[in-house]
Amino acid sequence: MTTQEWQNLRIDERRFRDDFEALSAIGKTGETGINRTALSEAHLAARNWFRQKIEGAGLRFSQDSAGNHHAYLPCGPTGVPSLLMGSHLDSVATGGRYDGALGVLAALEVLRTVREAGLRLPVNLEAIDFTDEEGTLVSFLGSFAFSGQLTEEQLSNPRGDPTMLEERLLFAGLSHGRLLSARRDPKTLAGYLELHVEQGPRLFDMKKRIGIVTDISGIVFYRLTFKGRADHAGSTPVNERLDASLGASAFILALHDLIASQFPDCYANVGDAKFEPGAYNIVPERVTLAVEFRSATDSRIEVLRVAILDQARREANRFNLSLEIEFLGERRPVQTSSTLRTAIQRAAKHLGLSSIDMISYAGHDAQAVAALCPVGMIFVPSVNGRSHTPEEYTPWEDCVNGANVLLHAVVGVAMKWRVL
Amino acid sequence: MTTQEWQNLRIDERRFRDDFEALSAIGKTGETGINRTALSEAHLAARNWFRQKIEGAGLRFSQDSAGNHHAYLPCGPTGVPSLLMGSHLDSVATGGRYDGALGVLAALEVLRTVREAGLRLPVNLEAIDFTDEEGTLVSFLGSFAFSGQLTEEQLSNPRGDPTMLEERLLFAGLSHGRLLSARRDPKTLAGYLELHVEQGPRLFDMKKRIGIVTDISGIVFYRLTFKGRADHAGSTPVNERLDASLGASAFILALHDLIASQFPDCYANVGDAKFEPGAYNIVPERVTLAVEFRSATDSRIEVLRVAILDQARREANRFNLSLEIEFLGERRPVQTSSTLRTAIQRAAKHLGLSSIDMISYAGHDAQAVAALCPVGMIFVPSVNGRSHTPEEYTPWEDCVNGANVLLHAVVGVAMKWRVL
Repeated sequence: MTTQEWQNLRIDERRFRDDFEALSAIGKTGETGINRTALSEAHLAARNWFRQKIEGAGLRFSQDSAGNHHAYLPCGPTGVPSLLMGSHLDSVATGGRYDGALGVLAALEVLRTVREAGLRLPVNLEAIDFTDEEGTLVSFLGSFAFSGQLTEEQLSNPRGDPTMLEERLLFAGLSHGRLLSARRDPKTLAGYLELHVEQGPRLFDMKKRIGIVTDISGIVFYRLTFKGRADHAGSTPVNERLDASLGASAFILALHDLIASQFPDCYANVGDAKFEPGAYNIVPERVTLAVEFRSATDSRIEVLRVAILDQARREANRFNLSLEIEFLGERRPVQTSSTLRTAIQRAAKHLGLSSIDMISYAGHDAQAVAALCPVGMIFVPSVNGRSHTPEEYTPWEDCVNGANVLLHAVVGVAMKWRVL
Repeated sequence: MTTQEWQNLRIDERRFRDDFEALSAIGKTGETGINRTALSEAHLAARNWFRQKIEGAGLRFSQDSAGNHHAYLPCGPTGVPSLLMGSHLDSVATGGRYDGALGVLAALEVLRTVREAGLRLPVNLEAIDFTDEEGTLVSFLGSFAFSGQLTEEQLSNPRGDPTMLEERLLFAGLSHGRLLSARRDPKTLAGYLELHVEQGPRLFDMKKRIGIVTDISGIVFYRLTFKGRADHAGSTPVNERLDASLGASAFILALHDLIASQFPDCYANVGDAKFEPGAYNIVPERVTLAVEFRSATDSRIEVLRVAILDQARREANRFNLSLEIEFLGERRPVQTSSTLRTAIQRAAKHLGLSSIDMISYAGHDAQAVAALCPVGMIFVPSVNGRSHTPEEYTPWEDCVNGANVLLHAVVGVAMKWRVL
């Protein structure tokens, strides 16, 4: 195939769409929602569907010991590394159809397109579906295991329900020991490229078609528990209570103000709260908050960490409560590879698509894989920036554009692999 | 038996204590905790134990169609009404040993004592264990059904989990239809007396042995849901979010201030909160609060209701959220019978125990039964006012005092029944 010929290559839009529709039916909720939390029945059904697609396309299927599903196309010489593409098929419980799924389907489609074109490259190509990117069990379970960053501590004090973690690992045939030994030899990887929806409004607002990710922000998880005293709510005057909900509520409001006023470049969220004992007529003894915060630089993360924990301590003191701080893990900020960014930019230009450099404030498997090899990320617009909701939407044309940019970036960089 | 003789009557302390210890072992958690939520396995085991005690004491056992367990002592002429005593054997999930249990055991002990003394009275005596006083399923399920105040609406929109309600009703052999037709004919009741721990610190602080309840405060339940929008927490700037947790948190703090500054005679509590979808990386779309408030007078309840709902609307507006208000039910304030108060006062005096009139801010089955007949309530001290916690504690001497006051008040009022 000549350079001219491969530059005319495009993915098969019809097949890509059929795949998208078939996958969107697995774990479907309502018209456009998806509930495929990691290693749930629906998620495993989606993975099984993906395996059948891989095998049906004449690609080699394999599953590593972290449960990640791989498709392998031996289009290069024996023994050369793989250029890896992928994302994740799991979703949050109230997710949409594009997050993760788009990147996995596009990776499969690129493999099929290259295979059918009979392209020979200096590297092999591989697609991957990572386990539990969304963190229903342990955030980035699959890509952390794959990149050798998963720890026994994360498994024994997971972000989600520990019982659910054990049940689902068992259900999926996985184990702590196998997860902790799933690390991929970095010598077998030439690089990693991930296509994903932006999950924010910037491309949509700026009317740009392609985002080229320069940095993936760091993210830190804490569980903060405000502790007071359980009393009968009908016989203990409000001023004599040690009501844990007051400290927790004051912290939620103060965190919002802290970010808005002093850390406008950062993000924070209190996504869940648990009141205990949790009855109408009992003053809350414990309120446990699920807290995360993000920044694109290591130094800002550390300043923000101190500010947030200080604020929590102050609010606890103010209401005579005690505070329990549990650090649940973090992902450091990552810079993408300039070679891969250039390849994405050239691919977008070649395809006539406007592009712009941007920071990803959402975490991605690419962030974990960066510990093994150079990584790059391609974003396509999210209408109104909606994400982690059934209202998540990316016009089909943008999905196809993203897959074609992935195809051209991958082939472009693969052809020049020796200089990567 | 002469007047002199019955005035020397006392309950059997040893038997009462043995009963208390045996009952405290059912649904035990830790050293002193109890988990006997309504119609749970532990609760039904406690009821079964109570049934055996009733039958073992030669009393007549019956169960009404609301599941309430009755012990009947025919110590009066055929066809005369019963003077009823009792409380409840269910607990909150993190309860203590005294709340409810003390009143049921004391009622049983009074029946046994009167029976063994061979006392003939102008009325019959009856003890009752009411279903679900604590409101795990439907607040006051048993005494509301017994007094004809339970509605189909309460059953179809329960305070607790609707699935749990149906499962537990089935498990206990109860049904909506039977619950709604459980009303007791008021002609068969001469009055109702309930012994209970105070659940507040007043008797303990004032070093008084017996509280004579003059009023039981009214209580109102609402479910308030603040609704915003689910967004990806890592890519939606805090100022562009519609974060339901901000309105809910501001409301929790404002409610506390409202009570402290404008309603010091009232009580309010936000005992539980549910964040949805409830994930680290999703901005809370819905936060649902379990709200209750109390006052001893109808007029204050209405002023407080308006103030609380206005506050919730203001906080929702302030953060551009919508607010869903669900009224879950209420119990109107109740005044106890002066005849029964006098009987309690005389009994305490006769037994050499200090007593004081007081308002009950906690709700009690007596409040429901007041729809059928005159009611009275006896309180004994709660050390440090602790309640709805395993640390709930009443010295054994006070428990015995309470049971003897119940005995003497009941016999005293029964002897004069014709003038009641």
